Amino acid sequence: MNKIVVIGGGAAGMMFSTQHIRKNKEDSVIVFEKGEYVAWAGCPTPYYISSSLDFGAVVSRTVESFTSKGIDVRVNTEIVSVNKDEKYVVTDKNEKVYYDKLVIAVGAKPNFKLDNAYTLSNPSDAKKIKEKIEDRSTKKALIVGGGFIGIELAESFIEKGLDVSLVEANSELFPIISKNTKDILYDRIKESGLKCYLAKKVTSFNDNYVILDDDTKIDFDILVLATGVKPNIDFISQIVETKDGKIVVDKHFNTSVKDIYAIGDSVYNINRMGGEYIYQPQGDIANKHGYLLAANKEFKGTNRSFASSYFEIKVAGTGYSLEEAKKLGYNAKLVEMTGATKNSHFKEAKENKVEVVVDVDNNLILGAFSVGYDAVAQFIDQFSILISQKVKIDELINIDFCYSPTNSTVWNPVLVLYRKVVK
Amino acid sequence: MNKIVVIGGGAAGMMFSTQHIRKNKEDSVIVFEKGEYVAWAGCPTPYYISSSLDFGAVVSRTVESFTSKGIDVRVNTEIVSVNKDEKYVVTDKNEKVYYDKLVIAVGAKPNFKLDNAYTLSNPSDAKKIKEKIEDRSTKKALIVGGGFIGIELAESFIEKGLDVSLVEANSELFPIISKNTKDILYDRIKESGLKCYLAKKVTSFNDNYVILDDDTKIDFDILVLATGVKPNIDFISQIVETKDGKIVVDKHFNTSVKDIYAIGDSVYNINRMGGEYIYQPQGDIANKHGYLLAANKEFKGTNRSFASSYFEIKVAGTGYSLEEAKKLGYNAKLVEMTGATKNSHFKEAKENKVEVVVDVDNNLILGAFSVGYDAVAQFIDQFSILISQKVKIDELINIDFCYSPTNSTVWNPVLVLYRKVVK
Repeated sequence: MNKIVVIGGGAAGMMFSTQHIRKNKEDSVIVFEKGEYVAWAGCPTPYYISSSLDFGAVVSRTVESFTSKGIDVRVNTEIVSVNKDEKYVVTDKNEKVYYDKLVIAVGAKPNFKLDNAYTLSNPSDAKKIKEKIEDRSTKKALIVGGGFIGIELAESFIEKGLDVSLVEANSELFPIISKNTKDILYDRIKESGLKCYLAKKVTSFNDNYVILDDDTKIDFDILVLATGVKPNIDFISQIVETKDGKIVVDKHFNTSVKDIYAIGDSVYNINRMGGEYIYQPQGDIANKHGYLLAANKEFKGTNRSFASSYFEIKVAGTGYSLEEAKKLGYNAKLVEMTGATKNSHFKEAKENKVEVVVDVDNNLILGAFSVGYDAVAQFIDQFSILISQKVKIDELINIDFCYSPTNSTVWNPVLVLYRKVVK
Repeated sequence: MNKIVVIGGGAAGMMFSTQHIRKNKEDSVIVFEKGEYVAWAGCPTPYYISSSLDFGAVVSRTVESFTSKGIDVRVNTEIVSVNKDEKYVVTDKNEKVYYDKLVIAVGAKPNFKLDNAYTLSNPSDAKKIKEKIEDRSTKKALIVGGGFIGIELAESFIEKGLDVSLVEANSELFPIISKNTKDILYDRIKESGLKCYLAKKVTSFNDNYVILDDDTKIDFDILVLATGVKPNIDFISQIVETKDGKIVVDKHFNTSVKDIYAIGDSVYNINRMGGEYIYQPQGDIANKHGYLLAANKEFKGTNRSFASSYFEIKVAGTGYSLEEAKKLGYNAKLVEMTGATKNSHFKEAKENKVEVVVDVDNNLILGAFSVGYDAVAQFIDQFSILISQKVKIDELINIDFCYSPTNSTVWNPVLVLYRKVVK
């Protein structure tokens, strides 16, 4: 019988705990969660705030649903130190708990905080934001940061009828995708009324307004910082090996310390394409970590697949952008095309833009990105599979795709890629 | 300079001709087409009949658009014989045309015909059906055959306000898919008002009615036979090797006779999974044949991917069904799951049913089928890629999919398959 202690009851920690206890009924699993919720999902929170999803989409399971499975879940309990030599943790209630194996699943926290600003990294944050924007006196919202959460929150706030501004330091949203491919996203932003300040930085934060580096003043009733996250590791960085603030693990989630594992948003992933460290704090990856650690299976890394949306415009991508590929020394080129789930002659037909980054020398796909309306992620998933299997572009023509006018185009983007590259 | 003669101006023939002349400007290409249209697409015809698509979706290019590229296109001209020793063809105008290479792209024709019944295998047929159903006196339609064309025509006729009956000899529509997976299709059929007679055969065809084998009498104003197609090869079967009425070609589309090639709906394909002959008369395959013959590239066969739809219900599949796999001696089992392009908590979320046929002994995917609402074909295309690359199920967990609540579920069907099989 092993005594397993898990720090953190988010997606990674609870997926691990559930799977582990299923397979090892004789073990004991104790989960310490400093917040009040466990197994919460971060990605649906913007849609909970806009009321498109109810709270059940964010927190779908109670603490009791886990304790009834034999997992000892202790919410509102923080771990304040770890003794790796004597193998115990200490709680904020000064309790000492010994472990045979320790799993760090502490997740991430905002990069940057301010007293009068909201951030969004757990269900309690989401509840506070929702309450604030549903207050009638809240009319103007300012979001700083135009990543996934920033853009999804902007949609959410606009749906709630707010006057919304978004400030992003980069000159582009989704800088990994080329301008041509995402112009429909910018059109939609304009149409939605979102005031988008790109290539701008806040130089002064004040109680009800900010000043940008071009002296623009933006008033707000609510300010949300969505400037990114970093591992929530605090003192843990003195216990296990880290790199730039992220925990370093091997393919079996071992940290540098024996019997201490780390999973989820606190660890570095390996890019399976190039082998370099990438930080990819995403719910689906955290889930997968938890699942694989419990199964004692190797995790080969990711190729940085992602998806997001802004109203009906969907965005997805995988792998390296053209710019990144070139920096890494690849002889890379961009191949542009469209993808659609309907014959283009249908009145309601809408096309996705697709761009594929190609390794000319090695006849391989390096990345694929799409912005559009339907099945955007599912088209990119096809490219992600091809990347993971290192399928040569010369081989693509022999893949047999599903075709009918109401389902697809005669030539799937994967086949179009072949035609455009092989000629 | 080579003189190329092409018999048949459909998708395969015109794709070949266009690609060939692009690469071999010094060659001459003559296309003989017995109908009045070339490069027409068969798959959109049901939607042209329902007026969802205009005629441009069926015939998007004129004869002149090809002649201007240097292809000598002769419509309304039938080839009546081929002399393979002296290498010439004879037209119905008694003209003798010599060739260096002959490409047979004659397409398919209905399996079964009757004087008072319509069939749908070219744009002229589609025009006739459309004219007939738009006549006010046409109120009752009967379709015999519940394959792709039968079911798509049924939708088309119902959209036009007709009272529609469909008779199918098989006890199921899409017999390759299990009952559980397609029950939403049957629900939709019921709701749409289509009278579906399954496991029934017509024993007597009459002017305005038919009698089924259970003595049911069905009246009609229009009768359409959609009982399937066969290669339109007539005399050609005495010239090149055939098997069960289909032309046999190798991976470079060579027939049994030197310098005679065959492509499109008149040839057998090879199932790249098992190596057996399969007849797959589909527009996308015909296009691919034409493209590959012109490029002198190997065609490795198909794994029988298909798609169709009935109103908003979409159907797609690839590979072997459970029953087929078992017959072929595989230790096969069925794994059922759902797939969706949205978090299930969204009010508008709809799930696709997905079933995957697994080769238990070899840890491989044998087939995948889905019926549902969004991205049905694009999910199945992911499985088709995995089948074509013979990816082991053990490997699937390490594929990185695009996730966000508005694009997908946390666990893509490919990952669910891993979880359900590997456990």
